[in-house]
Amino acid sequence: MSVGTLILITRPVLGGSGSDSGPAFVFADVADPQLSVLDLAATRGDGIFESIGVSDGRPQALREHLARLAHSAAMLDLPEPDAAVWTEALLAGIAAHPAVPELFAKLVLSRGVEGGSPGADTPTAWIHLGTVEDQSVARNSGISVITLDRGYRHDVAQTSPWLLQGAKTLSYAVNRSAAREAARRGADDVLFLSSDGFLLEGPTSNVLLRFGDRIVTPRTDQGILAGTTQTGAFAFFDACGFETAYELVPAGAIGRADAAWLVSSVRLAAPVRRVDGRPLPVDAELTSRLNSALLARTR
Amino acid sequence: MSVGTLILITRPVLGGSGSDSGPAFVFADVADPQLSVLDLAATRGDGIFESIGVSDGRPQALREHLARLAHSAAMLDLPEPDAAVWTEALLAGIAAHPAVPELFAKLVLSRGVEGGSPGADTPTAWIHLGTVEDQSVARNSGISVITLDRGYRHDVAQTSPWLLQGAKTLSYAVNRSAAREAARRGADDVLFLSSDGFLLEGPTSNVLLRFGDRIVTPRTDQGILAGTTQTGAFAFFDACGFETAYELVPAGAIGRADAAWLVSSVRLAAPVRRVDGRPLPVDAELTSRLNSALLARTR
Repeated sequence: MSVGTLILITRPVLGGSGSDSGPAFVFADVADPQLSVLDLAATRGDGIFESIGVSDGRPQALREHLARLAHSAAMLDLPEPDAAVWTEALLAGIAAHPAVPELFAKLVLSRGVEGGSPGADTPTAWIHLGTVEDQSVARNSGISVITLDRGYRHDVAQTSPWLLQGAKTLSYAVNRSAAREAARRGADDVLFLSSDGFLLEGPTSNVLLRFGDRIVTPRTDQGILAGTTQTGAFAFFDACGFETAYELVPAGAIGRADAAWLVSSVRLAAPVRRVDGRPLPVDAELTSRLNSALLARTR
Repeated sequence: MSVGTLILITRPVLGGSGSDSGPAFVFADVADPQLSVLDLAATRGDGIFESIGVSDGRPQALREHLARLAHSAAMLDLPEPDAAVWTEALLAGIAAHPAVPELFAKLVLSRGVEGGSPGADTPTAWIHLGTVEDQSVARNSGISVITLDRGYRHDVAQTSPWLLQGAKTLSYAVNRSAAREAARRGADDVLFLSSDGFLLEGPTSNVLLRFGDRIVTPRTDQGILAGTTQTGAFAFFDACGFETAYELVPAGAIGRADAAWLVSSVRLAAPVRRVDGRPLPVDAELTSRLNSALLARTR
């Protein structure tokens, strides 16, 4: 639905060429067209984004999301986002949106309009806020996932940084294609494997595995997005007395796990109840406590 | 520059849900915002495109471009483009554009606006036409290229179709990142290699190699876009008495080639004068004849 709150960021980056005189951001109508057909977001997927959960008006893991936005910008040779402007705009957007328990905020920074005009080096940027749809089925009953080869070796981020693995870019066609492949096979979501057989992440999530009292997630040097929700989940498990670890995880390990979750900013922790058709135990009580803790984060 | 001719396609696909009563396309001002920030082209790079060269008012290889657009649509589970509408709109755009020797036409089909509104299954589509900048330096003096690992095995299109290799999607951030890597290394363009050591294609071009009287291009079953300009170049070389072939080409073969070209719809044939720092002979006379033949194509 073309609803929600839209803020156009007019000065999204540090040292940008935009005018210093006007406001740094303005509210706009999400139902109106706002982007040029020459915007490189639309023609090349050439930009970056973050999706932030907002619980009872509090943006969750905001500092981590803005740090990741800056990291993605550096990987794409985009100018550094002005964290103060994005924060101020986000808080203004949250204040302007009708109060609901859970909001999402999508922050987008595009390289801007293609071509040689004077403003060509000015990125386009916006924040879109909307109400989170009911996530209770995924959070409570769990999801079925399939594993798919992502095609890259686990060390590709080190060997071939131009492939942008580990940056959160707007070029998400493959992630959406993988989701359609899952739907075709009757599953809810995907777990990507490296071409050399390691467990990586979901198209829009990180994966956590429980082995007894250990919680393991794949090491982020494998071209995996450093997950803000994964970090929050580890804080919860640490506080519960679990051991938490970042490891190289062979693909087969998920079949031996006592439990698994896909974690992301909006759906939060979705327990995995089935992997490639094999059932996996769902710990409803632990999952419920985990999601409550994630929603209760105060920063 | 925000210039050129813009046509919004209101009925871009067969059996679409759009109204049948209005015109199938309308002219619009490219300087005005036309896209929603919720368009999946802008937020997910979720769409497809074609770039067509227009020589003296004639769109080149139009049938092949529209066939490739349909192939890309099928790979992304998008509805089938209505070739008649796209053709009519393109010809109207060419007629409306000031007459210049070389135009480009960019055809874009996006999955549309995200969400649950009634029009959500209606793709967004447009054609943008503009004047081709002077390409004589690349066509005459040639280009220097570097080879970069694309990270995928040569057979990835067969083993992992969800990776969309061989579809021309809007998710081009990696192609643009590779171009920046080339610029950092003082080169003009990139030749991608498969992770298992085969020569593939450029980020926006196909590669042709000459070995004596043989012209070779990498086999398109390696996740390579079937090149419309490559096809036109093969027709030229066939007519000149060369033998033409699609092959698995080991990465090292380019160092033994007598000549090489990157071919694409707008730049046409750019001779490669240097690969990874090693000089390669440029046959100026043959290249000139090749580009003249490409510009003279009548369909």
